[in-house]
Amino acid sequence: MSVSVSRTDRIVLASRPSGAPVAANFRREQAALPPLQPGQVLLRNRYLSLDPYMRGRMEEGPSYAPPVALDAVMEGRTVSEVLASADEALTVGTLVIAPGGWQTHAVVDAASISRRLHPAGLPLSTALGVHGMPGFTAYAGLQEIGRVQPGETLVVAAASGPVGATVVQLAKQQGARVVGIAGGEAKRAYVETLGADVALDHRADDFAEQLRHAAPDGIDVYFENVGGKVFDAVLPLLNDFARVPVCGTIATYNARGVQVPGPDRLPGFFSQVLRQRLNVRGFIQSDFIDLFPRFEQDMAQWLREGRIQYREDIVQGLDAAPDAFFGLLQGRNFGKLVVKLD
Amino acid sequence: MSVSVSRTDRIVLASRPSGAPVAANFRREQAALPPLQPGQVLLRNRYLSLDPYMRGRMEEGPSYAPPVALDAVMEGRTVSEVLASADEALTVGTLVIAPGGWQTHAVVDAASISRRLHPAGLPLSTALGVHGMPGFTAYAGLQEIGRVQPGETLVVAAASGPVGATVVQLAKQQGARVVGIAGGEAKRAYVETLGADVALDHRADDFAEQLRHAAPDGIDVYFENVGGKVFDAVLPLLNDFARVPVCGTIATYNARGVQVPGPDRLPGFFSQVLRQRLNVRGFIQSDFIDLFPRFEQDMAQWLREGRIQYREDIVQGLDAAPDAFFGLLQGRNFGKLVVKLD
Repeated sequence: MSVSVSRTDRIVLASRPSGAPVAANFRREQAALPPLQPGQVLLRNRYLSLDPYMRGRMEEGPSYAPPVALDAVMEGRTVSEVLASADEALTVGTLVIAPGGWQTHAVVDAASISRRLHPAGLPLSTALGVHGMPGFTAYAGLQEIGRVQPGETLVVAAASGPVGATVVQLAKQQGARVVGIAGGEAKRAYVETLGADVALDHRADDFAEQLRHAAPDGIDVYFENVGGKVFDAVLPLLNDFARVPVCGTIATYNARGVQVPGPDRLPGFFSQVLRQRLNVRGFIQSDFIDLFPRFEQDMAQWLREGRIQYREDIVQGLDAAPDAFFGLLQGRNFGKLVVKLD
Repeated sequence: MSVSVSRTDRIVLASRPSGAPVAANFRREQAALPPLQPGQVLLRNRYLSLDPYMRGRMEEGPSYAPPVALDAVMEGRTVSEVLASADEALTVGTLVIAPGGWQTHAVVDAASISRRLHPAGLPLSTALGVHGMPGFTAYAGLQEIGRVQPGETLVVAAASGPVGATVVQLAKQQGARVVGIAGGEAKRAYVETLGADVALDHRADDFAEQLRHAAPDGIDVYFENVGGKVFDAVLPLLNDFARVPVCGTIATYNARGVQVPGPDRLPGFFSQVLRQRLNVRGFIQSDFIDLFPRFEQDMAQWLREGRIQYREDIVQGLDAAPDAFFGLLQGRNFGKLVVKLD
């Protein structure tokens, strides 16, 4: 092993946001890398994935993962290259998906690395998007919860994003009628190119009405990844036995602890769950990790064959990460948001 | 075939309730029975089941079954005896479960009869309770949705009722820690005799606190059959991956269309569904009707062996039905509510 760098440029959590995150919640700094311990590797991070779930990690409170500590590097998944290794199984030069964080280099336990990349003609960045966690979220949520049948109607929001765009295409493969929803005309038009039967802009004044017309037979699967206004419009259109995989409620990420004005719709929602025998189920992709190897193989083939399209929004350099992240929470990105670090 | 009666004493829906049903919503009358058509049978109804779902049938609006028409006989499941038959397959004297309604006699299509009774030592009335739809609701909901594992904690309300009491006992059979909830000390004490690890009275001022102590490891399965205050106390105690089979929300049956004061808890609930990967699923027993034959056989054996206990609240005569039904919606009955018609 040979350690060739001793410092990392990084972004740490300086303070916890109240409401939408702001620049002052982050701090850019240089830090010394710790010496490699046995079983660890030194990584050069090449691409950093920015994802909505990171908003949750910025604050304390119950979630499916502990929060980022104050003054600690912001967590994030990276495509990284092994620069030095104190682990038998990981040799220098290996490309991996790692919990590398918002920084240029990292020392991590080899055990934290669950995936090695064999790019085989696919751009490295896809391992963070359509061929990574977001694509797998779409795949697993459809297969394990949505179970859309030929001829059924599926609705998905954020349909120009990496999860939604994959849901649109996989559901079409599976024979469903697909309504994709996005914000703004450019994204809406893109969703049409993915093969959605109808693509809608949720910013339209008569969006709820448009959705009703787009789903004349009701909605059998609502892939819930945004919450808010789209959810409100979907709820009265759900069919009996509808499935609602819930993998994100981005519209409320900034509203934790904020009281939403009444009336309280929760009792009525439970009446609807009973009357219509709805199945509402939250998940994160790692709940179904046993399916990952098959996904990885299937998706690589679909990508090579051009059967699945994807779009990336790549920003340049670590300094661009905070602004890009704010934009993500506001829907300003267009495609999977990735920071190119080198 | 020989028709031996030509009239029925019956109770019809005179008007639709707003809020809790009242006596004026019903009308007692005599009516002529129609002549038997081919494929029909004349029934003498011996026991009438009164159930919370009947509240839903009294009003218009979407549900899993159409409402009872004004001036039509109130719907209800009965244990009935075939008095005359114009159907080859059903002979005079056969005991059946039928959609006999709130009346002493009925003419029904033989095709509407899905179950013949072979009492074999079990009281006839049990075919409407522990050995009928309510018992099967408990059985199917646990098997298909609750899937409680040994050592997990299950909470069920209305635990002295026919669904809840069966849930308590089946979940204990399956190795769960069981918290049963009922209203009032007599019912609470009864739930203890069913084998619940803890039995609570939801009327206690510190009920939420008591529930927290009764479920020190959190709640893995909440069998939702009441809604309201119990649901509110359960929600913050749910564990990750908790299952919530929803088969009733009796606390809100009278509140359809009534706005519940805010704040609106629905967005926060969806955040919780995601964070904790909850699975919330509505069902009615007939969704799982393929399981019924095995249930019928298993439960008959458990009852004969004394492994499953049950309690019935039997009222005498058709005239007693409306008051008994009002009491059911207020929790005044104690055990499966059945009207003995003869």
